[in-house]
Amino acid sequence: MARGALGDHDAQAPAAGNPPLPKQVLVIGSGLIGTSLGLALRNLGVDVALSDTDPDALRESVARGAGRAASDDDTPDLVVVAVPPRAVADVATAALDRHPGAAVIDVASSKSAIVQTILARGVDAGRFVGTHPMAGREVSGPAGADADLFEDRPWVITATAQTGPRALAVAEVVARACGAVVVHLSPEVHDRAAALTSHAPQLVASALAAQLAAAPVGDVVISGQGLRDTTRIAESDPRLWADILASNAAEVVPIIDGVVADLATAAASLRTQSRQEQDDAGRSVSDAAADVGTGMASVVELLRRGNLGRSRLPAKHGGAARAYSVVGVVLADEPGQLGRLFAAAGDAGVNLEDVHIEHSVGRLSALVELSVLPENATRLTSALRAGGWRLRTP
Amino acid sequence: MARGALGDHDAQAPAAGNPPLPKQVLVIGSGLIGTSLGLALRNLGVDVALSDTDPDALRESVARGAGRAASDDDTPDLVVVAVPPRAVADVATAALDRHPGAAVIDVASSKSAIVQTILARGVDAGRFVGTHPMAGREVSGPAGADADLFEDRPWVITATAQTGPRALAVAEVVARACGAVVVHLSPEVHDRAAALTSHAPQLVASALAAQLAAAPVGDVVISGQGLRDTTRIAESDPRLWADILASNAAEVVPIIDGVVADLATAAASLRTQSRQEQDDAGRSVSDAAADVGTGMASVVELLRRGNLGRSRLPAKHGGAARAYSVVGVVLADEPGQLGRLFAAAGDAGVNLEDVHIEHSVGRLSALVELSVLPENATRLTSALRAGGWRLRTP
Repeated sequence: MARGALGDHDAQAPAAGNPPLPKQVLVIGSGLIGTSLGLALRNLGVDVALSDTDPDALRESVARGAGRAASDDDTPDLVVVAVPPRAVADVATAALDRHPGAAVIDVASSKSAIVQTILARGVDAGRFVGTHPMAGREVSGPAGADADLFEDRPWVITATAQTGPRALAVAEVVARACGAVVVHLSPEVHDRAAALTSHAPQLVASALAAQLAAAPVGDVVISGQGLRDTTRIAESDPRLWADILASNAAEVVPIIDGVVADLATAAASLRTQSRQEQDDAGRSVSDAAADVGTGMASVVELLRRGNLGRSRLPAKHGGAARAYSVVGVVLADEPGQLGRLFAAAGDAGVNLEDVHIEHSVGRLSALVELSVLPENATRLTSALRAGGWRLRTP
Repeated sequence: MARGALGDHDAQAPAAGNPPLPKQVLVIGSGLIGTSLGLALRNLGVDVALSDTDPDALRESVARGAGRAASDDDTPDLVVVAVPPRAVADVATAALDRHPGAAVIDVASSKSAIVQTILARGVDAGRFVGTHPMAGREVSGPAGADADLFEDRPWVITATAQTGPRALAVAEVVARACGAVVVHLSPEVHDRAAALTSHAPQLVASALAAQLAAAPVGDVVISGQGLRDTTRIAESDPRLWADILASNAAEVVPIIDGVVADLATAAASLRTQSRQEQDDAGRSVSDAAADVGTGMASVVELLRRGNLGRSRLPAKHGGAARAYSVVGVVLADEPGQLGRLFAAAGDAGVNLEDVHIEHSVGRLSALVELSVLPENATRLTSALRAGGWRLRTP
């Protein structure tokens, strides 16, 4: 990630078609994301104006160096709406009215309802694009802000057919300047993916941690790193997260239903197990244990599916290498390309084990590395070539 | 933690009543825990003999330096039974028969059934004590073993009225020599606590990760550290964990039932929310959002309980200090003392916010620091004094 003073913009984004960083950015909402973005943009020499309905939050954000308080004379090139989900559509619409020269983006955790509402109002909506930096923390407010919050994290941009090229380009250049990895998804796919990877996990972690609330203190004294990791995000702000969950309820519900069904099935098996154990009081432990195999099959199966699901998470940078074959595909960095690529792999009957997306600095293309089982590599390569995809020569 | 060659034992455990480390230890089962214990004891100069029904596991454990293969001539002072829960009672009983001079401990993740079975058989059961080092990892087998695995982790010892003083003392000295913090709990309290802090979290993390198994690969590509932490333990070995869950089913079930009930209630609120959103298609997002407050009250409440539950986890060493008052109590390091102390605090109507247990090196007493809200400190102090507890003078 290139960083420098204001005069260095050309050096940072030399390619034709890549606009320079905006000179002035208005950030509305100085919570965790707004303040972190202000800090990152200020480091890059951008003039950042901040506003917030809570004067204390604004004061703290300014004091932390995220920018100056906004004034009526400001003429931002970009307005970033960083308010809670339920307020985003109104604030973004007002910003489009108030700043006719500016692109407007939001950073809320759900996208479909917000984007639809803004498009439906038709107020020069081509200047708006919905985005979501996947960079939350279990803390909220300006105190937890960090200029490096977006570094190496996905920043989803949800362009639609109405999105104008300038709004899209500004969103991309800001995301990349903050060190994020740009991922293009439709608002609908974003919401489904965010429900699965962020919103439902929040609710599950909170429900698990909630069982600790009423337990005798002696029972939690032996807890270790496993429980600490599993419940870390349960420290998140309840009002903010209830708002996020409500804004994406339709996508969150089926996943929670799946967790509930799986846990209920497991509990039923364990209940049978526990009843057998009581019946077996006279038998030896090993005789009773011989029954475990059959009664616990559904639990073993759930734990196995957990292994499989866990293995599908993208590998950490620098993580252990796996015995996968990697097929490199060069994508034009345009909305929908990634989705079409995944669909093409699916049509070829090839399961993707891992995906890594690398955006070339200052270029409008991306290298996507698809990890597949070695025996599937040839099938995938042939299918993609036949479909006109540009493969990286190995 | 003192470490040295065999000749240093006296220097490590100088106090009267604290026995030296055993000279020869037989570890039956060379998986993660058995091999880690072998590595730790070998570092301390102990002669470690290893056995395993799986010759490959035994070979790897020996190759890693955890000890030598056991022989028929061995005369161990201590036998550590480190086999899966369902096999522990039989293997421990056989070890008591085979090595009449040895203390025998196990390291399984559940205790009541195992301890009851061994006591019921009456085979010189005073030489046995059940223990549980809370030091698992998401990997299993000798490959994941580490001499430091037990460092600063709780090692629960579940003595009963039948436990002889020598077995108890040897278990304590070995646990402490491995750097662990000894915690005395009854087998029943241990099983309740382990279900809450380890067994139920495993099942919940696996159920969450399982939802990722069937999702389109494009949906997991944006996942970040939150999901990674929440599902880390879902990498655990399915057969081993099904065995652990079965062995403690009676305690695990009510906690899973609680998680299921909480998630089902939250899903119902979200379902209502999602239906309203569709009905509200013509209304503005902000009008619809005004309804969030009421419909989502149960979700906010669950997230709050999650905050509270999470805050009850013991602070990490070196973690942020909290604004609690600390009441120090000096305990004789005897079975049941800690449980009675917690009960006394409960009887006084004082909620314990945190507990820290410090065992003095080479002494049979422990300093327990109870963290309470400042306004409760006087009440707790008075109640404990009246109950005859020995308070540390501040």
